[in-house]
Amino acid sequence: MITFHIQHPDEGIREALTDKINNLTKPKGSLGKLEELALQIGLVQQTLCPTLRCPQNIIFAADHGIVEEGVSLSPKEITWQQISNFLHGGAGVNFLCRQHGFTLKIVDAGVDYDLPYEKGIIDMKVRRGTRNYLHEAAMTEEEMNLCLERGAEVVRHCHEEGSNVLSFGEMGIGNTSSSSMWMTCFTGIPLEQCVGAGSGLDRAGVRHKYEVLRQALENYKGDNSPSDIIRYFGGLEMVMAVGGMLQAAELKMLILVDGFIMTNCLLAASKLYPEVVDYAIFGHCGDEAGHKLVLDAMNAQPLLNLGLRLGEGTGAICAYPIVESAVRMINEMDNFAHASITKYF
Amino acid sequence: MITFHIQHPDEGIREALTDKINNLTKPKGSLGKLEELALQIGLVQQTLCPTLRCPQNIIFAADHGIVEEGVSLSPKEITWQQISNFLHGGAGVNFLCRQHGFTLKIVDAGVDYDLPYEKGIIDMKVRRGTRNYLHEAAMTEEEMNLCLERGAEVVRHCHEEGSNVLSFGEMGIGNTSSSSMWMTCFTGIPLEQCVGAGSGLDRAGVRHKYEVLRQALENYKGDNSPSDIIRYFGGLEMVMAVGGMLQAAELKMLILVDGFIMTNCLLAASKLYPEVVDYAIFGHCGDEAGHKLVLDAMNAQPLLNLGLRLGEGTGAICAYPIVESAVRMINEMDNFAHASITKYF
Repeated sequence: MITFHIQHPDEGIREALTDKINNLTKPKGSLGKLEELALQIGLVQQTLCPTLRCPQNIIFAADHGIVEEGVSLSPKEITWQQISNFLHGGAGVNFLCRQHGFTLKIVDAGVDYDLPYEKGIIDMKVRRGTRNYLHEAAMTEEEMNLCLERGAEVVRHCHEEGSNVLSFGEMGIGNTSSSSMWMTCFTGIPLEQCVGAGSGLDRAGVRHKYEVLRQALENYKGDNSPSDIIRYFGGLEMVMAVGGMLQAAELKMLILVDGFIMTNCLLAASKLYPEVVDYAIFGHCGDEAGHKLVLDAMNAQPLLNLGLRLGEGTGAICAYPIVESAVRMINEMDNFAHASITKYF
Repeated sequence: MITFHIQHPDEGIREALTDKINNLTKPKGSLGKLEELALQIGLVQQTLCPTLRCPQNIIFAADHGIVEEGVSLSPKEITWQQISNFLHGGAGVNFLCRQHGFTLKIVDAGVDYDLPYEKGIIDMKVRRGTRNYLHEAAMTEEEMNLCLERGAEVVRHCHEEGSNVLSFGEMGIGNTSSSSMWMTCFTGIPLEQCVGAGSGLDRAGVRHKYEVLRQALENYKGDNSPSDIIRYFGGLEMVMAVGGMLQAAELKMLILVDGFIMTNCLLAASKLYPEVVDYAIFGHCGDEAGHKLVLDAMNAQPLLNLGLRLGEGTGAICAYPIVESAVRMINEMDNFAHASITKYF
C-alpha cells in the first residue's frame, strides 16, 4: 500500500502567531473563528504571513454497485449527467468556483459510462463502478491502492500548478451509503444514526436503505482494519479523495472538507494517518442525518451551517471566503502599538 | 416624527421565483439557505434575476453617557481612536470591506471628540454623546428625530450612488448597554439575560453592568411606547442606524444586519414599522450573551455563527459572499430541461 509522510506542524511558531493575533486592533478573541483559522493556517504554513494560492476544487466521480439494491432515490445515470452539467458550467459547483476563483478539476475515478475526456475530464478510472458490497467487497486491494495513488497524483499536479489550498468534492449516486458504512465502522455510532435521506429519500426509502446496509454490515467478514473497511465499503471516488487528502497533508496544503461524504473521507484518512486532521478545515455541516454526529465524533467545528446537501464541494467552497478573511486579518490588520490605540479592551 | 412608507414586498412573484429555484439542477432544497435567500431577494427586488449593486457598510459612531457608571471595560476614548483606525484602513472592518468590495462610510452620529471631517468622516453629529440614562433620558425628542432623519439621509445618498444593499455597523463604547435595554423592553426577556460582557467584562463587571441597568430600568418613568424607549435608552448612533434601516426598507434595499447591537436596532425599527424585517438579512450570531435570544425572539436565522463580537459591521460583511452566492445561484445555474438531466432527485 502507498505510504505518506505526514507530520504534525511544528509548534515552535505557535507563540509568535498567537502574539501577533492578540495584538491586532480588536478586543482579544473578538474575531472568534477567524482567529482560530489564522493560527491553524500559520502553523500549517509555518509563517506569520500566510497566503492562499490558486485554490482548486477537485470532484472525484464514480458509480456504486450498491445502487442495485435501491438505496438511492436518484438513478445511476445522474452521475454522468451531472458531470456533463459541470462541464457546461451550469451546476451548483460552477457558480461557486467562478465566485471564489477556484479552478475546477473533474476526475473520473470510476464512472460507469464513457465520458468525453477530450473535454477536460481527468481519466483516472479504476473500474466502471464498485462491486455490490451487500455480497462482496466493493473493490480489490489492488483497486484500492490504485485509487489512493491516483488521488495522490491529482493532488501532486495541483501542487505543481502552485496551489496550496484544495477543496475536495464528489459526485456519485449511492455514495452516502458508503459514507454511512465508514462512519459506523470508524466511530462506533450505531448504523441507524449514520443513515440519511441522501438526495431525497422519504421515510420508507431511508428505512429500506438502512435495512440493506444493516445486512451488508452483517455479511462483512473482514478483519476490521481501517484499510479493509475502506476497501470493502468504499466508493472509488471516495478512496481517491482519501489518497488526495493524504497527499495534500504530506505537501502541507490546506484541505477544505465539504459535506457528509467528504467528512467521512477525512475520517477514513485520519484512521490511516491521524496527522491529516491538522491540515483540514471543515467547511460545512449539512442536513444529511449523521453529518453533525460524525463532525462531533471528530471534534470538528465546521464554518458554515446553511442546510446544504448537494455535495460537489459546494459547502467547502462556500466557506472559502471565511478562510480568506482569516488570512487577510492576520496580514492586513494593524496592531495596537502601530495604530496608537489604547490596548485596554 | 419623520415617517417612512414601507410595504411588504408584493407576493405575486413568489410562485414564479419558487418554480425557478426548484428547477435548477440540484435536488430540491439541497442548496438550503441559499434558496431561501434567493427567494427573499427576488421578492424584495420583484424580479427573477436579482442583482447586488455597490454594497456599502455604514458605521454610525457615538459616545454614551452611561459609560460614566463603569458599564464598559473599554474607556470612552476607544470610540474616536478606532474611527481613526478605520480611516487608516487597519481595523477589522477594513480588510473585510476590501475583500468583498464594500465602500465604507463612517458617520459621526455623536462622538465626544473633534473628529477630522476633512478625512472623509460624514458629520452628522447630533450632540457630543448621550446623556446618562441612569438619571435622565439619553436624548430629547428633537435629538431623536434628528438622528432618524440624518440616518435616512445617509442611506438616501447611498441609494443615489447606486447601492441596493447596505450593511449597518456601529462604533460606540457603551452601546451594548443601550442594546440590552432596548432588548428587554421590546422582547420582555428579563434584563439579566440581555446583559453580556461587551468588549470583555469579567463576571463581576457584568454583574455591575447589570445592576446599573436594572437601576436605570427602575428609574424609567416614560410611557413605554417604542419611540419613548428608543429615545430614553438609545445611543445616537443606534437611533441613526434605525433611521437608516427604515429608509433602506422604504427604498427596497437589502439590509445586512450585523451583531448584537445592530440586531437590536433592527428590532427597534420593527417596533415602529414591522415591514422592515422583510428587507433584513441577518448576517451573524455573535458571542455576546443575549444575541441568540434576541434573534430567536425575532424568529431570525443568521447566516453565520463564527463567534465574532467586534461590531463595526464585520459579521454582516463576512456573510455577504453567501448572499452573493444566492444571487449567482438563481442567475447562473442551469435548469433541468435545458441541461437535459433527468429530474428525478
